[in-house]
Amino acid sequence: MATPARNFWGWGYAEKLPGRAQRLALAGQLRLALGFQAGLPKKPPRLDDIELRRPRVEVPSGLAGFSTAGKLERVSHTYGRSYRDIVRGFRGDFSPTPDFVARPRNEDDVAAVLDWAGERGVAVVPFGGGTSVVGGVETNGEGYGGVVSLDLKGLDRVVEIDPVSRAARIQAGATGPLVESQLAEQGLTLRHFPQSFEFSTLGGWIATRAGGHFATVYTHIDDLVESIRSVSPAGVLESRRLPASGAGPSPDRLLLGSEGTLGVITEAWMRVLPRPRFKSRASVLFDDFERAIEAVRAVAQSGLYPSNCRLLDSREAMLNRVVTDGSCVLILGFEAADLSVRDRLSQALRLATEAGGRCPDGAIYREPGDESRGRDAAASWRQAFFDGPYLQTSLVTLSVIADTFETACTWDRFPTLHQAVIRNVRAAMKEVCGAGFLSCRFTHVYPDGPAPYYTFLAPGKSGGELEQWAEIKRVASDTLIEHGATITHHHAVGRTHRPWYERQAPKPFLGVLKAAKRTLDPKGILNPGVLLPDMTHA
Amino acid sequence: MATPARNFWGWGYAEKLPGRAQRLALAGQLRLALGFQAGLPKKPPRLDDIELRRPRVEVPSGLAGFSTAGKLERVSHTYGRSYRDIVRGFRGDFSPTPDFVARPRNEDDVAAVLDWAGERGVAVVPFGGGTSVVGGVETNGEGYGGVVSLDLKGLDRVVEIDPVSRAARIQAGATGPLVESQLAEQGLTLRHFPQSFEFSTLGGWIATRAGGHFATVYTHIDDLVESIRSVSPAGVLESRRLPASGAGPSPDRLLLGSEGTLGVITEAWMRVLPRPRFKSRASVLFDDFERAIEAVRAVAQSGLYPSNCRLLDSREAMLNRVVTDGSCVLILGFEAADLSVRDRLSQALRLATEAGGRCPDGAIYREPGDESRGRDAAASWRQAFFDGPYLQTSLVTLSVIADTFETACTWDRFPTLHQAVIRNVRAAMKEVCGAGFLSCRFTHVYPDGPAPYYTFLAPGKSGGELEQWAEIKRVASDTLIEHGATITHHHAVGRTHRPWYERQAPKPFLGVLKAAKRTLDPKGILNPGVLLPDMTHA
Repeated sequence: MATPARNFWGWGYAEKLPGRAQRLALAGQLRLALGFQAGLPKKPPRLDDIELRRPRVEVPSGLAGFSTAGKLERVSHTYGRSYRDIVRGFRGDFSPTPDFVARPRNEDDVAAVLDWAGERGVAVVPFGGGTSVVGGVETNGEGYGGVVSLDLKGLDRVVEIDPVSRAARIQAGATGPLVESQLAEQGLTLRHFPQSFEFSTLGGWIATRAGGHFATVYTHIDDLVESIRSVSPAGVLESRRLPASGAGPSPDRLLLGSEGTLGVITEAWMRVLPRPRFKSRASVLFDDFERAIEAVRAVAQSGLYPSNCRLLDSREAMLNRVVTDGSCVLILGFEAADLSVRDRLSQALRLATEAGGRCPDGAIYREPGDESRGRDAAASWRQAFFDGPYLQTSLVTLSVIADTFETACTWDRFPTLHQAVIRNVRAAMKEVCGAGFLSCRFTHVYPDGPAPYYTFLAPGKSGGELEQWAEIKRVASDTLIEHGATITHHHAVGRTHRPWYERQAPKPFLGVLKAAKRTLDPKGILNPGVLLPDMTHA
Repeated sequence: MATPARNFWGWGYAEKLPGRAQRLALAGQLRLALGFQAGLPKKPPRLDDIELRRPRVEVPSGLAGFSTAGKLERVSHTYGRSYRDIVRGFRGDFSPTPDFVARPRNEDDVAAVLDWAGERGVAVVPFGGGTSVVGGVETNGEGYGGVVSLDLKGLDRVVEIDPVSRAARIQAGATGPLVESQLAEQGLTLRHFPQSFEFSTLGGWIATRAGGHFATVYTHIDDLVESIRSVSPAGVLESRRLPASGAGPSPDRLLLGSEGTLGVITEAWMRVLPRPRFKSRASVLFDDFERAIEAVRAVAQSGLYPSNCRLLDSREAMLNRVVTDGSCVLILGFEAADLSVRDRLSQALRLATEAGGRCPDGAIYREPGDESRGRDAAASWRQAFFDGPYLQTSLVTLSVIADTFETACTWDRFPTLHQAVIRNVRAAMKEVCGAGFLSCRFTHVYPDGPAPYYTFLAPGKSGGELEQWAEIKRVASDTLIEHGATITHHHAVGRTHRPWYERQAPKPFLGVLKAAKRTLDPKGILNPGVLLPDMTHA
């Protein structure tokens, strides 16, 4: 079966971009639902019409066996998939394209690229699924001898499984589906399902501290990592496989979030699970967001540790067709391999209903031999969740500004932060676009605070969307940083968030990161300008 | 009420050292229980007989308001409380004593000490409870202009509480009892109960990645930290209060485990809990250790997350008077503030009994209005646990070598590791002492592996104990490192474990730590020789 072709400028598979008529209909739906008028559908670019700059370096003979300077490859490795990336791609602007793409077949190939690039002063951009939404895989290479995109997707194997410890050694380039299908052969699962699951890779998840499936406890990929192996210009850094250690600061925690700047992650031992056979879930409706927040906080602080604990405000619930009556929805779920999770759901539901929630559809249980069915808000939500990035791509063709931003803060600060976000981002959309829509959900929750995730949609001015977007994004980011929140809970820093990251991170710690960079990547060739300022030219 | 005097050479309060007759009786018990003959009780040293070296530096006038070179202070700040420390103290050997002790009253005082020490090339040893068992607070200061012990215990306040987010800002010098008594006023608790609880401090716990109360999920202090503030020669490093973040590598994770080498932790926001009102617990007995391990693994991998899940092998159970019939004991416990934890205990008990365990005493529940009582192995264990360090001090006076070592490894490696530890450490005790006793418990468990904790006791040769101990310790540490385990799960690296830490830690990561040190402490004055090689003289 042939793999369908990827959309070279937008999300996912090309065939999934709706036709003109469907996109016109989408514009109509938007007007009804959100009250503003999108632009007319514009025509997607054709690869033939794209002009790329001449490569500054040719593929050297030592790397020729696994490298290419083909046009489609260069185009496809120019950007991630942020709103800004998709707009530029849609406009046919691929100006920061890499000079060639290397696809290492093994770790020696990775080292060979780093050696050659170090000698030649060429920048190396580690590339997994290319789904970064923060400019994490893009560099124009100014000041460098060129740019190589180092695509790890050739390293896509589950190499080894330890069923007793429930851990698997997985190569960094394995995408979500490849990780899961290989583990499924042994009845195991990683259960890390970011929105980019279909395309993003294990190495990318680790490098960016990706957020995943579990709403509590094991929220970030960080918590699933047992050990990491990475190749840097200074050599191989491999941590010991350990369930835990108290021997000095954690080496894994240095690589988690390093965003390709300190080394190229080649593989990791990951904590895996048997596939869950017991599930319980329910949706709890609330008339107002404040009471819903109380309920979520009670569950987050209860010690019940639900797998799912996702709160959608009324706009988010409507936008994703979960409920449309103006309620907020809390989706609660538990899962386990070997034990019933009915009782824990009952306890969580008691907390949620005590805080004013109602559960009209009751609880849903899936247990071996007992597959009760019913209306299932979580299923509606899940479908909308994975369709989201495709929708964004369609919206770009309608000149709609469509983006998200996410954060985390302590519970005491959330009400003030949330009010400020609503006020400031709405005002910014009104000012720069004349109108706009803003919704909020909690993707993950902690005993001491939530991780709110905002979606904004506004009518863009064709050709001026990026300036409009940048102003809204600036207002949103300023608001987060000024209210004690983080610039990102799980989207990473990249290039986009760097100005705010520099306000968030303790100054001496930034000094330490730069020192780490000088130690592991003395020539500053790895992913320059991402996370840290471009070191070579600082 | 006057505070009782501390034992200047051994554990805890001086008045708790048993008299000669009691210690003679203890020697008799040892012979019956363990089959070897301890030495005759020797007389503890008197402070008057201790001779200290002349200070290399005097207390400077700028620090005089909070510093002292008094004899008892210098003696009490010479060592931690490792076996080696207690033996040396018992012998009256305080040769690496600091020149003076500073007791900062606020963060400015901390900065003043660092400034002065930086100018004068004086080493600064951050000192919390002084309970390190790895030589973490000792330096003779060779190559330095002198040594200051920086005792943080004057900073002992819970400064601020956020009841909504359940977090508290606590100064680093607060001991366990001070943390808990101040939080108790608000109905809250940190629930971090290391064996050193009575004396150790929050800052020490953070600097050493201390292990605490919870057997699963929140095992290390790491998981309770929301943000940290620390003062280094390069300035203040303070992280943002956040429930979680994906913005770059975690700054807190750099300080966690830094052992006083990268900065002086002055305060932290900690995640706290309401006091638990619902508890359930039970003891499960096993005829053999292998089946008990299966049971523990099943519980650790179940997703039930017990608060307590401590496995004692038959020797450990006997030594601590939990059971004496040769069974291994698994102590299971759950606790929560607002919800019954009966069901979760039942589920865990089912897993444990399916693996061959029996529960003759049944489960114990404590709930509001239902205080059932019964024989409670956990209570016996807890008393023995906190008495352990006192017992060790008594044993030193009987020339008994009495120490512990602890580790963590993946489940697949545990059987081989455990066999090797038993074989090698017993052989070493036999060879250097003629006899010995070795027991094992699991202090914490993870889905992918246990944290085994070993206790060894052997008849020492009066005056030669340290050499004998060093040989046994060397064999134990080599065995851990050679079998893929960590040199420490929660006792830290200090000076004692450094040779093995250097084998465990990835080389490039040690380079990064050294670079971090040069960035934050360019003159290398902070805790030289602990965790990292002494930088100034490297």
